[in-house]
Amino acid sequence: MIVTLTTDFGLRDGYVAAMKGAMLAAAPDVRAVDVTHEVPAQDVMAAAFVLRGAAPFFPAGTVHLAVVDPGVGTLRRAIAARLVVGGTPCRFVGPDNGILPLLADGPPVEAVVLDRPGAWRTPVPSDTFHGRDVFGPVAAALAAGAALDDVGSPAGPLAPLHWPLPRVDAEGVEGMVLHVDRFGNCTTNIPREALAGRGGFKAYVGSSVLRRHAPSYGHVAAGEPLTLFGSSGHLEIAVNRGDAAALLSVVRGAPVSVVFEAAPAPPPRTRTRSASAA
Amino acid sequence: MIVTLTTDFGLRDGYVAAMKGAMLAAAPDVRAVDVTHEVPAQDVMAAAFVLRGAAPFFPAGTVHLAVVDPGVGTLRRAIAARLVVGGTPCRFVGPDNGILPLLADGPPVEAVVLDRPGAWRTPVPSDTFHGRDVFGPVAAALAAGAALDDVGSPAGPLAPLHWPLPRVDAEGVEGMVLHVDRFGNCTTNIPREALAGRGGFKAYVGSSVLRRHAPSYGHVAAGEPLTLFGSSGHLEIAVNRGDAAALLSVVRGAPVSVVFEAAPAPPPRTRTRSASAA
Amino acid sequence: MIVTLTTDFGLRDGYVAAMKGAMLAAAPDVRAVDVTHEVPAQDVMAAAFVLRGAAPFFPAGTVHLAVVDPGVGTLRRAIAARLVVGGTPCRFVGPDNGILPLLADGPPVEAVVLDRPGAWRTPVPSDTFHGRDVFGPVAAALAAGAALDDVGSPAGPLAPLHWPLPRVDAEGVEGMVLHVDRFGNCTTNIPREALAGRGGFKAYVGSSVLRRHAPSYGHVAAGEPLTLFGSSGHLEIAVNRGDAAALLSVVRGAPVSVVFEAAPAPPPRTRTRSASAA
Repeated sequence: MIVTLTTDFGLRDGYVAAMKGAMLAAAPDVRAVDVTHEVPAQDVMAAAFVLRGAAPFFPAGTVHLAVVDPGVGTLRRAIAARLVVGGTPCRFVGPDNGILPLLADGPPVEAVVLDRPGAWRTPVPSDTFHGRDVFGPVAAALAAGAALDDVGSPAGPLAPLHWPLPRVDAEGVEGMVLHVDRFGNCTTNIPREALAGRGGFKAYVGSSVLRRHAPSYGHVAAGEPLTLFGSSGHLEIAVNRGDAAALLSVVRGAPVSVVFEAAPAPPPRTRTRSASAA
Repeated sequence: MIVTLTTDFGLRDGYVAAMKGAMLAAAPDVRAVDVTHEVPAQDVMAAAFVLRGAAPFFPAGTVHLAVVDPGVGTLRRAIAARLVVGGTPCRFVGPDNGILPLLADGPPVEAVVLDRPGAWRTPVPSDTFHGRDVFGPVAAALAAGAALDDVGSPAGPLAPLHWPLPRVDAEGVEGMVLHVDRFGNCTTNIPREALAGRGGFKAYVGSSVLRRHAPSYGHVAAGEPLTLFGSSGHLEIAVNRGDAAALLSVVRGAPVSVVFEAAPAPPPRTRTRSASAA
Repeated sequence: MIVTLTTDFGLRDGYVAAMKGAMLAAAPDVRAVDVTHEVPAQDVMAAAFVLRGAAPFFPAGTVHLAVVDPGVGTLRRAIAARLVVGGTPCRFVGPDNGILPLLADGPPVEAVVLDRPGAWRTPVPSDTFHGRDVFGPVAAALAAGAALDDVGSPAGPLAPLHWPLPRVDAEGVEGMVLHVDRFGNCTTNIPREALAGRGGFKAYVGSSVLRRHAPSYGHVAAGEPLTLFGSSGHLEIAVNRGDAAALLSVVRGAPVSVVFEAAPAPPPRTRTRSASAA
């Protein structure tokens, strides 16, 4: 009976509450849990990053509603799906804007287009607020026991969108910063597996070289930068008790280069790395 | 058993949590749903605008608690009422500061002054935090089944406050911007009905003329301004995938003029319109 | 079955949701109530101040989870305890970082170190996110009926941390500002009891002298500064319908001097007071 909510609605305007009201009107026992409503406006990839970090920890079967919807009122489709996120089976409801492929471990188990107005709020939905009029009521219905068949018809291929993948070779890994959190910790797209069994390494980002890798922040002195594997299992750039993004001038999208110490002396492979190493 | 919460308390200070704690202590099964706690400090009209946009979508009978209370501890009255908002019957609890007439479709069905300390938190309430000590417990009691009679005595006339109404004539409509949301969309006080059956129109705001009206944002090119009827049924000024308030320099309170195209050539009626049309 | 949440996680990143998901996975009926997630990063004393203002109003037995945890992954201990806050018996779960002594009315009734991995999320917890992997599941288990014995072993002495105490003598009280809220109201560490029975007083803060003391904001004219006893029972510096912190240039930590009027002519005791009085 849980529905999580991820939107770019913010908390000032009452949009989230209108959506929750429509959900409670559709299914009085539904329990709404906010993931975040502070996704940057219309930033689908940021919504996927945040939800992917939270969804695997909810009970199996949880419905995840994600409404970041610049195409509302146009031909973009509305979908629901069964999928697996971080190993946990769950369900998704939202626009077909690429977020589902970013979330899911693989292709969805089942996906439908929302074409059953009987599952929507009546009267006829507005053209501007499908979160309240379509997605919320459908998510609540699914949480209350409806099957995907009850709310839509088979969807066929979904809008594609994919994470930028790191490039791995014998000398190291070229990746990037996917997310900067409120503490200034910078999560990269470099998974723990890419570095496993490769021995020590240095990480280059901006004009900094990070030589310390530790299990957690407190293993280095306050103010000292380090890399660690964050709670999502990806390489993270951090400063113990400090804001790495501010101190090292790192922004989302910044390139990150990892160089294995056991590797032969690396020739410069990117401008970023050679500038840092110089 | 639902109580919605609309306040200017913010989320940094624990005031909302203290109020929810007092509600749960009064009625353990009550379900609190936040509308917003980011109402600008002491801005009763903003609170009413946001709550009026969310309340109609909750199940009938929901209790809406709205505490924006610059007069706490003075002679302003505390009230509860049965009313209709956007066609949905519901209940209200809060200070008698004008918010109820702004919310309700018409006069309240019933209104009481909160004069039964038995429904409040004991010991004697503080002079500074009636949300926690009076309104929260009363709202929880109502959600748990109490009648208005159980928490107060007939209220008589309430503090009046009303929305600025648009002026409509054969040539067009003079209105204003009531709210700017987090996306920069600007909602006016001009209802859909004022423009129905009048054919095409142009809208003037600040130094801009908006000539495109569409059902939703995505019907115009990215970056293009438009007018549309927002999810509340009022004329809205927006920019597809952009921030209309920033791009068009619109603030809350800005005058908005609509000119019907079928109308005879309009003489300048306001400085705003003539300047824009020049 | 209530667990309140106080963290410095913010609401942008999904950390709070991951923790709630882990709680719901451990105990499906648990009800999470947010106190705040906007504690300044790693500011244990601010977390304690906010939670102490909210905890007493929840039903007895409520579990309060407070995760402000700069030492995650190091040797700092994880604890749970039974304690009394503002007269209300409750339970606490979080790091042993000093927050418990700041919260509790006295020594905890019982405290345990969390050393039972059976109560944690499986697989093995991460080194960086004990809120999700340890504290959340333990708090949920306690709310669902577990005893402290089920989640840990006797803790012995806890990390000490204490509030700065005011200095009281026959002439007045020397205290400080502990918290500035979103309205700009400044709460001090001077309790009502320190001023009871002493007659009139003046309060000095920064370069201002406050001569008006009233039961609540609305007893003075709009824009006028005053002192009052806030909802926590401590002396507060405020401006009716205004922002005292901004208008009087007061920040957290600022010294506050109260001088009893019935006292003999006070010699200058601090620079602050003598400068103000000059």
